[in-house]
Amino acid sequence: MPLTGNLLIGQRSVVGTEAPIRAVDPTRNQSLEPSYAGASAEQVTQACALAWAAFDAYRETTLEQRAHFLETIAEQIEALGDALIDRANTETGLPKARLLGERGRTCAQLRTFARVVRAGEWLDVRVDNSLPERQPLPRPDLRQRQIALGPVAVFGASNFPLAFSVAGGDTASALAAGCPVVVKAHGAHPGTSELVGQAVARAVAQCELPEGVFSLLYGAGREVGIGLVSDPRIKAVGFTGSRSGGLALCQAAQARPEPIPVYAEMSSINPVFLFEAALQARAEPLAQAFVTSLTQGAGQFCTNPGLLIARQGPALERFINAAAEQVRQAAAQTMLTPGIASAYANGVAALGENRNARQIASGQPHQGPNQCQAHLFASSAQAFLADPALQAEVFGATSLVVACDSDEQVRQVAEHLEGQLTATLHLDAADLDRARQLLPTLERKAGRILVNGWPTGVEVCDAMVHGGPFPATSDTRGTSVGTAAILRFLRPVCYQDFPDALLPDALQQGNPLQLRRLLDGRREG
Amino acid sequence: MPLTGNLLIGQRSVVGTEAPIRAVDPTRNQSLEPSYAGASAEQVTQACALAWAAFDAYRETTLEQRAHFLETIAEQIEALGDALIDRANTETGLPKARLLGERGRTCAQLRTFARVVRAGEWLDVRVDNSLPERQPLPRPDLRQRQIALGPVAVFGASNFPLAFSVAGGDTASALAAGCPVVVKAHGAHPGTSELVGQAVARAVAQCELPEGVFSLLYGAGREVGIGLVSDPRIKAVGFTGSRSGGLALCQAAQARPEPIPVYAEMSSINPVFLFEAALQARAEPLAQAFVTSLTQGAGQFCTNPGLLIARQGPALERFINAAAEQVRQAAAQTMLTPGIASAYANGVAALGENRNARQIASGQPHQGPNQCQAHLFASSAQAFLADPALQAEVFGATSLVVACDSDEQVRQVAEHLEGQLTATLHLDAADLDRARQLLPTLERKAGRILVNGWPTGVEVCDAMVHGGPFPATSDTRGTSVGTAAILRFLRPVCYQDFPDALLPDALQQGNPLQLRRLLDGRREG
Repeated sequence: MPLTGNLLIGQRSVVGTEAPIRAVDPTRNQSLEPSYAGASAEQVTQACALAWAAFDAYRETTLEQRAHFLETIAEQIEALGDALIDRANTETGLPKARLLGERGRTCAQLRTFARVVRAGEWLDVRVDNSLPERQPLPRPDLRQRQIALGPVAVFGASNFPLAFSVAGGDTASALAAGCPVVVKAHGAHPGTSELVGQAVARAVAQCELPEGVFSLLYGAGREVGIGLVSDPRIKAVGFTGSRSGGLALCQAAQARPEPIPVYAEMSSINPVFLFEAALQARAEPLAQAFVTSLTQGAGQFCTNPGLLIARQGPALERFINAAAEQVRQAAAQTMLTPGIASAYANGVAALGENRNARQIASGQPHQGPNQCQAHLFASSAQAFLADPALQAEVFGATSLVVACDSDEQVRQVAEHLEGQLTATLHLDAADLDRARQLLPTLERKAGRILVNGWPTGVEVCDAMVHGGPFPATSDTRGTSVGTAAILRFLRPVCYQDFPDALLPDALQQGNPLQLRRLLDGRREG
Repeated sequence: MPLTGNLLIGQRSVVGTEAPIRAVDPTRNQSLEPSYAGASAEQVTQACALAWAAFDAYRETTLEQRAHFLETIAEQIEALGDALIDRANTETGLPKARLLGERGRTCAQLRTFARVVRAGEWLDVRVDNSLPERQPLPRPDLRQRQIALGPVAVFGASNFPLAFSVAGGDTASALAAGCPVVVKAHGAHPGTSELVGQAVARAVAQCELPEGVFSLLYGAGREVGIGLVSDPRIKAVGFTGSRSGGLALCQAAQARPEPIPVYAEMSSINPVFLFEAALQARAEPLAQAFVTSLTQGAGQFCTNPGLLIARQGPALERFINAAAEQVRQAAAQTMLTPGIASAYANGVAALGENRNARQIASGQPHQGPNQCQAHLFASSAQAFLADPALQAEVFGATSLVVACDSDEQVRQVAEHLEGQLTATLHLDAADLDRARQLLPTLERKAGRILVNGWPTGVEVCDAMVHGGPFPATSDTRGTSVGTAAILRFLRPVCYQDFPDALLPDALQQGNPLQLRRLLDGRREG
């Protein structure tokens, strides 16, 4: 399966005409073959036109057809075998064991959405039968279902080259909802993207779907991305990446004659609150678990614990000392790209020069290019409250401990936080009341709140929320991980007094799909 | 119950400090007492601060408390008695019978949301129990519920002074979701707004809720509205009104450091497709029913049928002739405000001067000030496709018939339409195939599709969608009428590994609220 370096516009493998990108092996700082020429504006338009042409047919495939398609994508990804893992390993520097796990997660995610599609709850069918005798006016027959928004532009993430990239969570949930997808591949792993893109395209062919259901584009600058988001046939956007990148897409989406929703997952420092009794009981094991979470995958997770908040005192000192010791032992790890490594170095340098932050410990020094050395900083709550720079995300294995004078100051720091993907509480029974008092603030600030765990590790399940208030995401009403992600790509349509013959299956009087409808105000059993 | 002309900031009746507004009796062009001084920037801030202070407590009221509050609002509105109907009649020129019906609808709407709150389905509870033995990693315990977005700014509509104003659909659904509400009263009916606002404030007091749950502001220009939407404590916006007004609020919401959702219902011309067999069988009764819908309430409905589309031929000629006859007999009716009457006159004049449109008939001339004379225009499909001015909404009793050469041209006109609240099909059995072919287009264009009815009349029920693609609304994912309106004001939060004692009721293991949860992938019975 040689890599072509080509775009995938529907079923056609096409040579791009614009400036190329090339992956870099971050462990050796060496660029990799082939090069991926960027899509021209016309090629972007072609992919969008194909997606549009496919939309009406694809959104009305049966639940079984669509579920089978998602499962076929999973099979086709698995059929790529070692070639996929090898290429992803070379392009990202991520260990093969991690990539094998991530491939498993990616395919399980596709199969989970197949289950969701078959269950059909996302159709949210509501039926109000007519009441012809009602006074003073009869009630018509009204039926509601959810339909797909339209073609979706998906932007792959660098840090999950499989699970949040070409066939990752955004693509799986959009396809599940009935939306064709045009992916802009992340420049950090174009070969991995091509392999997965080919797998999806093969699934499209095998399931005899319209070719425009899936396209895959490359581009060196922001033109392809902005072009995609500006195309009138694109009706929603899924993005995981930087705050500046996400905001640029939000702006483009709002500047359209017809604005569209953007689901951008952008920025989070994931505060961890260490309560007094928990700290006193287990400062050292907490410190060890913290540094494990902090340094996992070179800290390159959206949910990396970048902020620790606690009342100052001997227990916090014990925690800081133990964490510092762990950080000093942490080996440097290769980051995903030279760009990420250099942004990390800049972020660390800015903290080092900030007189509101004090360096506590640094990990083992670099052994090779693009490595992430772990760092731990500390500041007072007063300084943290006064200095917005201390809330900036440093993507990588760096964290800041904020020491507070009082419970009230803990609350002030919590209220001062921007929106977050997660917030974490470490507590013992004696801390429960304090935790309860902080909870309303955290519910307003975060999409997921954890007790006595660590935020890295995002389960794909029904109850997961990987989202949160701005700037964690651009739209706090959704989650990009878990089955509820499908809801982002739907809108309601109501059918009034339709003859059964003209109604979609989901709404027909006989309920052929056997859905649990909201029928005349009651949920069916 | 004398009118005070004051703002309501929580429980305080406060004199505004800015330029006043005064209602005008449109039947006499006479301004009414009292004057309503506008809120200052500081008063806007006070209302938002109170709403914010009330938020955490209000969103955690029990389902029963919140349902009872909504019911109490309904009782307090009913207790206003004739004073409310009389004032609304004087301020809007709407007949008392209509206003009595609208009051019934408003109170029924509040009680419907009380039922929705009690049922608790909107909490969308999802529980994934922990799997401690799972390999390679255990699954934590994960629980999701929906919580309120935060304080909501509501902008009352002119054309439903009760059902879509101070205690109308946006307010009822936001309060049901657990959001405090700050209303900017519509300048056309400040006295009606004050009476209803007092009723809501009495319900707040009677239910012993924090006073910030509800405030009511007035303002002459756009400052109060923009100030509200720009306040960092406001987290969502509900609006019904003009396209320019809605877009200004969208812009303000996007320009905030933290952008927020805006649900603006703005503009729709509600296309009606007349198919051949239906036209041939009943051109004349269709024409009569059409003109009844067109002229109802002086055409001042968001769902007024402003566009008719059909294949040209003898049946359409019969329809046009019959409709013209009906229009010519239609009496002029007083419009809501001098501003609306003058905008209507301008819109009609623009159509009259547009050489792509041909005037078919005009209704009875004015008998008094601010009256709406009905008009019917026609154009060719070719002209309609070429001239965007023919798609502009003329708010009032004016409609345009577009005559098409072929089914293909009908489809082209449908594809050419902007987003709509409604689309209507008139058909007989012989038209079913043609309707089926048009349906995918209409599903993409409209929030509600009707067969053999007329779009005016919007039922408050579970299946209703009063929404649609831009510019019908600014957010096609929601509905502003019907029980699903509550979903606009919610966001998901996930609780991981929480001890039961720290979980909200809705998520506790014993399911004390007896909700039908999504439990380990299965919906409870």
